[in-house]
Amino acid sequence: MASKTRLYVDHPLGAGQLVPLSQDQAHYLFSVMRLPVGAVITVFNGQHGAWDAQVAEAGKRKGLLACVAQTQALQMPPDLWLLFAPIRKERTAFIVEKATEMGAARVLPVRTEFTQKANRVRQDKLQAHAIEAAEQCGGTFVPEVAELAKITTVLEGWDSNRRLLFCDEAMVGAALDVPDMRGPWAILIGPEGGFSEAERARLRGLDYAHTLSLGPRILRADTAAVAALTVWQQALGDW
Amino acid sequence: MASKTRLYVDHPLGAGQLVPLSQDQAHYLFSVMRLPVGAVITVFNGQHGAWDAQVAEAGKRKGLLACVAQTQALQMPPDLWLLFAPIRKERTAFIVEKATEMGAARVLPVRTEFTQKANRVRQDKLQAHAIEAAEQCGGTFVPEVAELAKITTVLEGWDSNRRLLFCDEAMVGAALDVPDMRGPWAILIGPEGGFSEAERARLRGLDYAHTLSLGPRILRADTAAVAALTVWQQALGDW
Repeated sequence: MASKTRLYVDHPLGAGQLVPLSQDQAHYLFSVMRLPVGAVITVFNGQHGAWDAQVAEAGKRKGLLACVAQTQALQMPPDLWLLFAPIRKERTAFIVEKATEMGAARVLPVRTEFTQKANRVRQDKLQAHAIEAAEQCGGTFVPEVAELAKITTVLEGWDSNRRLLFCDEAMVGAALDVPDMRGPWAILIGPEGGFSEAERARLRGLDYAHTLSLGPRILRADTAAVAALTVWQQALGDW
Repeated sequence: MASKTRLYVDHPLGAGQLVPLSQDQAHYLFSVMRLPVGAVITVFNGQHGAWDAQVAEAGKRKGLLACVAQTQALQMPPDLWLLFAPIRKERTAFIVEKATEMGAARVLPVRTEFTQKANRVRQDKLQAHAIEAAEQCGGTFVPEVAELAKITTVLEGWDSNRRLLFCDEAMVGAALDVPDMRGPWAILIGPEGGFSEAERARLRGLDYAHTLSLGPRILRADTAAVAALTVWQQALGDW
């Protein structure tokens, strides 16, 4: 039942291409997984699909893989971003993981008025969660995780061609109308304390914003993220 | 921004009803939250809606609440069960939490051929997670968490009037057809290793089983649970 080890590498992939391993990767493959020279794993880099790659050199702190053959073409997700207000650490990591599995192309942590100050975000850690999720879930693409930014700043620079699906427990949303709604989108998940009145008024006033209802129960932010991504993927995405 | 404390109590609720507190509840309300006599919280018991209740006696190990007025009627979820194969501990707890938020009426952990033996389930702990999720999420209903049972046993006793929505990465599912599909349902989320060939053949042969596709990426079990619940709630539930 064991499936092939999948590894994200930050290196070009192609027939015969040699891929050097980082110290962490060598440790994982050769000390943890105990793979010998000649073993075949799957590698992907988010750009060139997935490749079978053979262990050419195995050391404690370094190693080399040789690409053998492409096994999956690059599968890009739809042009969908996920914006969310960071919550406590573990659940923020979950949101990034879920966004990757569910096929978001970009993940943007945003600070709102009611975002707890304690909910700091380390972009590098979250990006690593996106990579791990792509490794685990058979993906060939890794969404970019942006640095935390104020929602007001993000909205000031917004391209109005990108529609914004806005999930907020205090609003009753219409169903997502499918016709003529193809194109770039973003989903915005509010903070656990909800949006402030000023934020809500601003969001309501945006031409490119649409509201979405996620049922009669209050959902946690990580649940709401998966639910909203499901609704969008079913109506407008690649499901 | 603080909202009223919500507490599940295993006691009848009604106008003037006195509700004795357990030692843990008294500790939480009076030592952790430091509520004084006269403070008002929200209580619910899964049967009589939600009530404002006033602290009548506050002790270190005991206490008494007095129901004041009903603030929410009981909101029953649709007649939807969630069956899932236990995964590792933390994620199993997440599935129960998500099922509660998403409006499942009953949660059934099932053992499949490829369910890891290590993934034990403590029914009492999972039931406590369902209660906590209902407390947090404004619910008035708590789904019952069943004891772990073999999937073969569960299917032997199945009422064929309850349709089974079957999510398995190896199967391509049709969209959920809405007309004439109202009634009791259950969603089955497979284990991380997938179903065995024998299980898959058996599930395919069931008259009451329907398959659901959750897109081109492989989802973890907890993600798949939320996604499948979303699809069902949108098509046939109370969203």
